[in-house]
Amino acid sequence: MNIIKTNKKLKSIGVLLSMFGIVACGQPESSKMANTKKLEPQQSKKNRHWPNGAQLVISFSMQFETGGQPDGAESPFSGKPLPKETPDMPANSWFRYGAKEGIYRMLKLWEKHGIHVTSHVVGEAAIKYPEVAKAIARGGHEIEAHGISWSDQWNMTYEEEYEFIKKGIDTVEAITGKRGRGYNANWLRRGPNTLKVLQDLNFLYHIDDLSRDEPFVTLVRGEKFVVIPYTLRNNDIVNIEGKNWSPDQFLAQLKAEFDQLYLEGASQRRMMSVSLHDRIGGAPGIVKVVDQFIEYAKSHQDVVFMRKDEIAEMVIDDPNTLIDPSEMEYNK
Amino acid sequence: MNIIKTNKKLKSIGVLLSMFGIVACGQPESSKMANTKKLEPQQSKKNRHWPNGAQLVISFSMQFETGGQPDGAESPFSGKPLPKETPDMPANSWFRYGAKEGIYRMLKLWEKHGIHVTSHVVGEAAIKYPEVAKAIARGGHEIEAHGISWSDQWNMTYEEEYEFIKKGIDTVEAITGKRGRGYNANWLRRGPNTLKVLQDLNFLYHIDDLSRDEPFVTLVRGEKFVVIPYTLRNNDIVNIEGKNWSPDQFLAQLKAEFDQLYLEGASQRRMMSVSLHDRIGGAPGIVKVVDQFIEYAKSHQDVVFMRKDEIAEMVIDDPNTLIDPSEMEYNK
Amino acid sequence: MNIIKTNKKLKSIGVLLSMFGIVACGQPESSKMANTKKLEPQQSKKNRHWPNGAQLVISFSMQFETGGQPDGAESPFSGKPLPKETPDMPANSWFRYGAKEGIYRMLKLWEKHGIHVTSHVVGEAAIKYPEVAKAIARGGHEIEAHGISWSDQWNMTYEEEYEFIKKGIDTVEAITGKRGRGYNANWLRRGPNTLKVLQDLNFLYHIDDLSRDEPFVTLVRGEKFVVIPYTLRNNDIVNIEGKNWSPDQFLAQLKAEFDQLYLEGASQRRMMSVSLHDRIGGAPGIVKVVDQFIEYAKSHQDVVFMRKDEIAEMVIDDPNTLIDPSEMEYNK
Amino acid sequence: MNIIKTNKKLKSIGVLLSMFGIVACGQPESSKMANTKKLEPQQSKKNRHWPNGAQLVISFSMQFETGGQPDGAESPFSGKPLPKETPDMPANSWFRYGAKEGIYRMLKLWEKHGIHVTSHVVGEAAIKYPEVAKAIARGGHEIEAHGISWSDQWNMTYEEEYEFIKKGIDTVEAITGKRGRGYNANWLRRGPNTLKVLQDLNFLYHIDDLSRDEPFVTLVRGEKFVVIPYTLRNNDIVNIEGKNWSPDQFLAQLKAEFDQLYLEGASQRRMMSVSLHDRIGGAPGIVKVVDQFIEYAKSHQDVVFMRKDEIAEMVIDDPNTLIDPSEMEYNK
Repeated sequence: MNIIKTNKKLKSIGVLLSMFGIVACGQPESSKMANTKKLEPQQSKKNRHWPNGAQLVISFSMQFETGGQPDGAESPFSGKPLPKETPDMPANSWFRYGAKEGIYRMLKLWEKHGIHVTSHVVGEAAIKYPEVAKAIARGGHEIEAHGISWSDQWNMTYEEEYEFIKKGIDTVEAITGKRGRGYNANWLRRGPNTLKVLQDLNFLYHIDDLSRDEPFVTLVRGEKFVVIPYTLRNNDIVNIEGKNWSPDQFLAQLKAEFDQLYLEGASQRRMMSVSLHDRIGGAPGIVKVVDQFIEYAKSHQDVVFMRKDEIAEMVIDDPNTLIDPSEMEYNK
Repeated sequence: MNIIKTNKKLKSIGVLLSMFGIVACGQPESSKMANTKKLEPQQSKKNRHWPNGAQLVISFSMQFETGGQPDGAESPFSGKPLPKETPDMPANSWFRYGAKEGIYRMLKLWEKHGIHVTSHVVGEAAIKYPEVAKAIARGGHEIEAHGISWSDQWNMTYEEEYEFIKKGIDTVEAITGKRGRGYNANWLRRGPNTLKVLQDLNFLYHIDDLSRDEPFVTLVRGEKFVVIPYTLRNNDIVNIEGKNWSPDQFLAQLKAEFDQLYLEGASQRRMMSVSLHDRIGGAPGIVKVVDQFIEYAKSHQDVVFMRKDEIAEMVIDDPNTLIDPSEMEYNK
Repeated sequence: MNIIKTNKKLKSIGVLLSMFGIVACGQPESSKMANTKKLEPQQSKKNRHWPNGAQLVISFSMQFETGGQPDGAESPFSGKPLPKETPDMPANSWFRYGAKEGIYRMLKLWEKHGIHVTSHVVGEAAIKYPEVAKAIARGGHEIEAHGISWSDQWNMTYEEEYEFIKKGIDTVEAITGKRGRGYNANWLRRGPNTLKVLQDLNFLYHIDDLSRDEPFVTLVRGEKFVVIPYTLRNNDIVNIEGKNWSPDQFLAQLKAEFDQLYLEGASQRRMMSVSLHDRIGGAPGIVKVVDQFIEYAKSHQDVVFMRKDEIAEMVIDDPNTLIDPSEMEYNK
Repeated sequence: MNIIKTNKKLKSIGVLLSMFGIVACGQPESSKMANTKKLEPQQSKKNRHWPNGAQLVISFSMQFETGGQPDGAESPFSGKPLPKETPDMPANSWFRYGAKEGIYRMLKLWEKHGIHVTSHVVGEAAIKYPEVAKAIARGGHEIEAHGISWSDQWNMTYEEEYEFIKKGIDTVEAITGKRGRGYNANWLRRGPNTLKVLQDLNFLYHIDDLSRDEPFVTLVRGEKFVVIPYTLRNNDIVNIEGKNWSPDQFLAQLKAEFDQLYLEGASQRRMMSVSLHDRIGGAPGIVKVVDQFIEYAKSHQDVVFMRKDEIAEMVIDDPNTLIDPSEMEYNK
């Protein structure tokens, strides 16, 4: 946890990297995992799978999209769409919940637990609700890019996609002072050019991949680009709205997944991703069970909660990080 | 609780308002929350977020719609519709359950717990089953407007909508002696004119908004109009029939939501809304778990169950009530 | 329970009726509810809502339909239908499960608990699997009519419907020796003529109604006809296959519904209906939880399990039985 | 369990059969069920329903299909398909999970418990990920045929189907050294010729039948062919992805089904089938609950985990094995 708190004090990524370097050399500072049970010296020797000595790294995603939704965007009302010129008043109020209640409730949860998360911010959401975007940044959370608007990008040309992504990070930076270094495409649907665009815009990583339970490196024109796998399994929009789970089912999923990954973390590098959207995961019942999940995770030794940019920085040059060639055909 | 009981004795809204005024001035009478644990004097000082000193206000909605349904209205049979001239006998009997069993079962539940709820009454349902509408009113529950019939209103002109709503309250008043002062549109789908129509008909509040966990004020032509947010999360038609939850899941949702809102209620104004429809929430298994939920809620201090008209009266002129400009463009 | 066992010994309905008459006069024989806790004399005075002194009557439906299904009948495979001339081999084997395992497993469950149920038998299923139909009859269960085939009947003329139902009872009687006296239409979808047809065929009752939690009488051409309400709430095909419940959810539903109805049974006549289909409810996991439910129900006093023909005989002339005019327009 | 380990050492089916013969003669070696509680001598007399003295045989299926999926194959993304020429990057990464994480995680689970399973291997999956196919074979698991590609076969001519299946087993044998002797069609949808093709290719059994809870024999052109019934009830793709169950629901289903079948196993031959797909059942939360299920099953006496080829060999000539004529019309 203190890794994250320390981050806030350090401005320079170089310093940050060297700090992780030290950690990777086998001297994890126990104070860096203040939120979970202390790392015993002899145990730290067993847990060498992460540079920082963690047995499991957990990273939360918090989507801030409300206000950026197009007409007819997926909601409890979108199954029976209204004519185009008619405002869908209750649907709009359902989305608005994310800005009025959801994000603030989650920010309090992260603060209570001393956790910093990655917030995927749609440009137009930040324009509509700048006070929300600023509150996220002020909380020490990562402001990550999610496009200027809530739209498909898999069908764009290289140039269109470049503009789409660049306008998003420029816009959000102007509001929050933070420039996104990681990317999340609408419904994960990047196209074959997306990683090249991200590389050209100096991005560090993307999350639109579901193939592993640990971060890895893919080569884009021969250069390293980090992939921090996303999750549909620990994902509120998929499970709560899509699969119709009640909060207790979501908690059961989180605990079962945690138990297995934590066990595996004793012998390999493991990461758990959890995703929460402003208007869904920000509801009282979901925040309640996420709170319970965090308490549960913290009751285990060597569990570390991290922002995705921190994870990417930590693993990009680590020799134990996997290099996965699966998408080489697109990224030459 | 006694707030509600007292209401029954007092005919005048003026008296009622002044009573809330007193409460708002910081002298909550502990006897007013007879159903939950007593308010300790020192704790009452902390809970100043509601004028009546509550830590959480819970309001139940009980829709009485059966008998007003059009052919093909949503039911377990509507997925395979019959030709227009053919009566759908089992579907009709499924709806009839609301009038024959559902409402009466819920009325007994409210009576057992000394709770008064808000009943959204479709005009044609009251015409078809006047004895049911009268039983609701006789129980001390709020008779709230839900249109003359079970139909879309977002596509009406101002004049049509005015007639639609007025005919509803006139009709239900003629049957029950109570005139609705709050409004609930079919599937929450009001149109851009709805609030103006409601204002012109001297309504006090509407519920077709999902954006907050507390009541707020919106300005309609510059005048205050109360919004008591509705819920899709604690809603039987959404979860039991739509999301296919079993009763234990509904209970898990209610408890998780309660836990979080109650916690938050220590430091801000919080309200929990629960919605039950005659033919769905009136089923034995759902009433059983709602009973369990009420017991659970009552085991916490300073939980108050209220009708929505009481809430609206209590907050409309309270200085701590939020004024939300989100829909200003429609309500000028 | 012994009520049912006694039934088997008594051939005459007159004798049966007078027996119930005696029970209704306040002398319930405790031996008649051998499967639940004994009726204490003083308690029997409180429970006068049923002629037999029960606090709750539970009736199971066991559909035997396998082998009668038309091509493309609802199954896990019917979502992607095959061309008409192609046999759907796995779908057929899925249905066959009902005849090979499902019914026999349920028969063992009823025998273990000394319960007699109502089996809704499709004529063509009995033709295809006569040994199954005979085993049901041999177990002392009611053979109830479910049409000659698995087809819509709401769109038939009076004459077609008469033939359809008559052929069903003639066929099943020829195989099992039992003539159906109660009726269940495919998907409950009777038409406006159905009750008249049933009356002309000397039926005693039908189940295709969902409007109440107790049997009642409807008048068909001025004559009494019993309605034993069916259930979609405690129904395997609706919940297990339709709503995708796991067995523990089905058990939760059964227990929640039981708890509420049993409570209500202290002050009014209450009945609980449970429905199980050969190929669904006959699966191991469902039988397991139904077994647990029966154990749970039996641990309560004055719970009686009955066939629907027994219930109909018991209530048709009882003065406390409701007469419901809701469908008078069709049954003149 | 040791039955399976012993299998690996014995190359000859003759020897294997005679071993089962001995077991069938009443001398089950307790060491053969090392993973469950020991068989007491007097109990072995009661459990004569299986030749090896088991009270319940459990067989896991592990589908290895990833990499063989066609464009648009069922995934969380297939509901909104992309144009044909557009690669679905996140869907592809979702499938890839099966090869990168899912199979390996399950292999570790089987190894931990000393269980050998039946792996249904699509030819093209083995071509794409030969290292995965080899790892499965190396673990002592059965390599069973699942077609050369992930395609419909119910619409093929005899010759096409012969080629389709033969190419699959030839291909997988070339990679793993193991030739499939059992068959599983895509979505269980074999055609009327399938069993004849399998017979002509010297297959021993197929699994595309859901009609019983024990293996049986069907006659194909008068010769015995074993059917090891498959399951949709204990099936990850049906329940987790199709029915949207959370892991705890899947565990509840497995336990309820086990309890009932185990009970029945005292008086008849019973088998439980469980099915897990690489990219679904290989997820952490599912493996966690399957692990818990195996622990639960093992805490019962005389539970044996077997590969399907072992089961087929054990029952094909056993006199207690059912011969089922249901599909005679197709198999003459």
